[in-house]
Amino acid sequence: MDDMIGQRGVDEVISPFAERMSRVPRSFIREILKVTEDPRTISFAGGLPNPRFFPVREVAEAAQKVLRESGEAALQYSTTEGYLPLRELIVERYAMKGMKVDPEEVLITTGSQQGLDLLGKTFLDKGDRVIVEEPTYLAAIQAFGIFEPEFRSVPLKGDGIDPKALSAALSERPTKLFYAVPNFQNPTGVSYSEERRRMVARAMRGCRTVFIEDDPYGELRFIGEEAPSMRRFLGGKAVLLGSFSKVISPGLRLGWACARSDIMEKLVIAKQASDLHTSILSQRIAYQYLADNDVGEHLERIRSGYRRQRDLMVKMIEESFPAGVEYTRPEGGMFLWVSLPGGLSSLDLFNRAIENNVAFVPGQAFYANGGGDNTLRLNFSNSSEERIVEGMGRLAKSIEEMIWPST
Amino acid sequence: MDDMIGQRGVDEVISPFAERMSRVPRSFIREILKVTEDPRTISFAGGLPNPRFFPVREVAEAAQKVLRESGEAALQYSTTEGYLPLRELIVERYAMKGMKVDPEEVLITTGSQQGLDLLGKTFLDKGDRVIVEEPTYLAAIQAFGIFEPEFRSVPLKGDGIDPKALSAALSERPTKLFYAVPNFQNPTGVSYSEERRRMVARAMRGCRTVFIEDDPYGELRFIGEEAPSMRRFLGGKAVLLGSFSKVISPGLRLGWACARSDIMEKLVIAKQASDLHTSILSQRIAYQYLADNDVGEHLERIRSGYRRQRDLMVKMIEESFPAGVEYTRPEGGMFLWVSLPGGLSSLDLFNRAIENNVAFVPGQAFYANGGGDNTLRLNFSNSSEERIVEGMGRLAKSIEEMIWPST
Repeated sequence: MDDMIGQRGVDEVISPFAERMSRVPRSFIREILKVTEDPRTISFAGGLPNPRFFPVREVAEAAQKVLRESGEAALQYSTTEGYLPLRELIVERYAMKGMKVDPEEVLITTGSQQGLDLLGKTFLDKGDRVIVEEPTYLAAIQAFGIFEPEFRSVPLKGDGIDPKALSAALSERPTKLFYAVPNFQNPTGVSYSEERRRMVARAMRGCRTVFIEDDPYGELRFIGEEAPSMRRFLGGKAVLLGSFSKVISPGLRLGWACARSDIMEKLVIAKQASDLHTSILSQRIAYQYLADNDVGEHLERIRSGYRRQRDLMVKMIEESFPAGVEYTRPEGGMFLWVSLPGGLSSLDLFNRAIENNVAFVPGQAFYANGGGDNTLRLNFSNSSEERIVEGMGRLAKSIEEMIWPST
Repeated sequence: MDDMIGQRGVDEVISPFAERMSRVPRSFIREILKVTEDPRTISFAGGLPNPRFFPVREVAEAAQKVLRESGEAALQYSTTEGYLPLRELIVERYAMKGMKVDPEEVLITTGSQQGLDLLGKTFLDKGDRVIVEEPTYLAAIQAFGIFEPEFRSVPLKGDGIDPKALSAALSERPTKLFYAVPNFQNPTGVSYSEERRRMVARAMRGCRTVFIEDDPYGELRFIGEEAPSMRRFLGGKAVLLGSFSKVISPGLRLGWACARSDIMEKLVIAKQASDLHTSILSQRIAYQYLADNDVGEHLERIRSGYRRQRDLMVKMIEESFPAGVEYTRPEGGMFLWVSLPGGLSSLDLFNRAIENNVAFVPGQAFYANGGGDNTLRLNFSNSSEERIVEGMGRLAKSIEEMIWPST
């Protein structure tokens, strides 16, 4: 704080910030996105859905209907738990997949990011253990990091987390939470097979750890069969987070948490302290949109678009990346994951790629305990097919330059 | 946890919740609101603005314009800091009052409640001291309580907090935050005079405490002269929280925090971890509404309506409450505060009042360190004049019954 005395005058000196603030990093991705703002740059760095699939007209119609028919209620304070018809609709959508959830078990959150914050508040004392996948979703590290836990990373394989490594980690010391994205994970695109889900549930048997099943991408499957939610195997020991960000729009900031009653009671208290409730106008608009439109058809359009983009990105890797590069072939979602041949650094590649006007996220950002220096995340949802071809060409060129630098 | 084994079976037992959850109470007001759901009950308990002043049609027009002209941007992810034109408009509104704020110093929050959560995250380690007014805003106790501080209450007088008592409290031990609502406080309706603001600033001189100036009601002044923000006296040691809840609509969940750059940097990190950003659709609708409408005129309508309601409530107290009852005469806002003659309990009165179909919030809910057993909060913003006359009559009758119980 000392230099601030000079800068601001003695009486502008304030107390130190909370300890946690020295540990929670500003999002690396956020910093990267700033570098990539140059319009000539083709960016595979962001994690955005493709706006050409946003149901703008339908949302506008829903907004009009809501404000015309229940304007005062849509603009007034509302309940912390969320708009009941929307919660019932979420329950119906789960029921169509054969999953029984009660509306009382659903809390509407301000994006599923808030679900992570509320779970941190509800469960984490300083030093408590949280198991995460390696690599894992960066913003989960940030959200839980606020509550100063100890993170323990367990490697993610091609069809889910390694159950033996998970068992070993669970036996080391009591673990409060195990956080995972079993469908089309961010950053890798990896999904847990049904068999792997069963193995994970077996590994968790007998321990008191709560499984946080973050599922923002579940509806974006374009290949293969849907695997059951971990709730099927773990019952009330699983808390399921869902989101409308990829189904309707992220700008509405609407997600939800499904949790059994004793956990829900605490989540509601934490939610109340955090923002009282989620925008009821957003909630009613989302409800009206879902009630008045064929969402299945809408999702089908998104899925087939993303599939073409993913196929093209995979094809470009196969055709133009050097041998020794490994990559995932996601069955859905928005990301794929590339591992460079041993010894090559994705941070070095990033610097070179930026010069060639193409961007991605270096993989080390997703490692809670370090590592991943040769990995990178590519987003395929938010680029046109033309830009995927052009951008992947630039990326291949950047890799070539790194392997055989011209002198 | 033991009884859960019986209820759920051994394998549904989970880890204990975080310690903080045993300390943060479920909102007492929330529980009260459930009791008052009987349609025959006239409730002065809630803290709602009057929906008859919601600009429903104008908001609908703004929503259409936003979705027609920039639908994709309004539905996509956005920046954590918030929509720049909205932040600039907030800055302009401050400038009209002679206050200089930079857009970089403004963070859009999910209601001003979220501002409290973010400040708790940014500043509070377990056991840190927070000074609050006595009585204080209940939801601030909840929001800060998540971070397990030690609360120290300093009595609020008729024109602001007692500066001597504040100095004494500040000298006891280092204090991270002093939280106050200087305009038309919730729950009391009390405002700090300009002289009192200067005295508070003097009392804070030389200490590192950050002043949290929560100002959701500032625009609702219907009597007297506006006093300057504490930022005038404290500069960057004051963090100012604002809200559109009482100006446009609480359902949009839009507030903001004004803070100097080093604090802002931390608040942005905390916000990112909490919900990524506030609904950009809400933000753009609010901006469009404010840009296209005469908000001054709109506010004038609200103020004159609330003034009539407040006058009527005061008149009813003067005419029908027994001698010895004390009450505030707020110059704005939504609440007034009643103290019953010594020895009378507002909880007892509450139970009697509910039988007479009228409700309020017993004042002890607003005391962070206990006390206030003879006080109550009355909301005048959300009742028609007819209901104020009828409800206050029922309340007077309830007090009479308590003082002279029939046998």
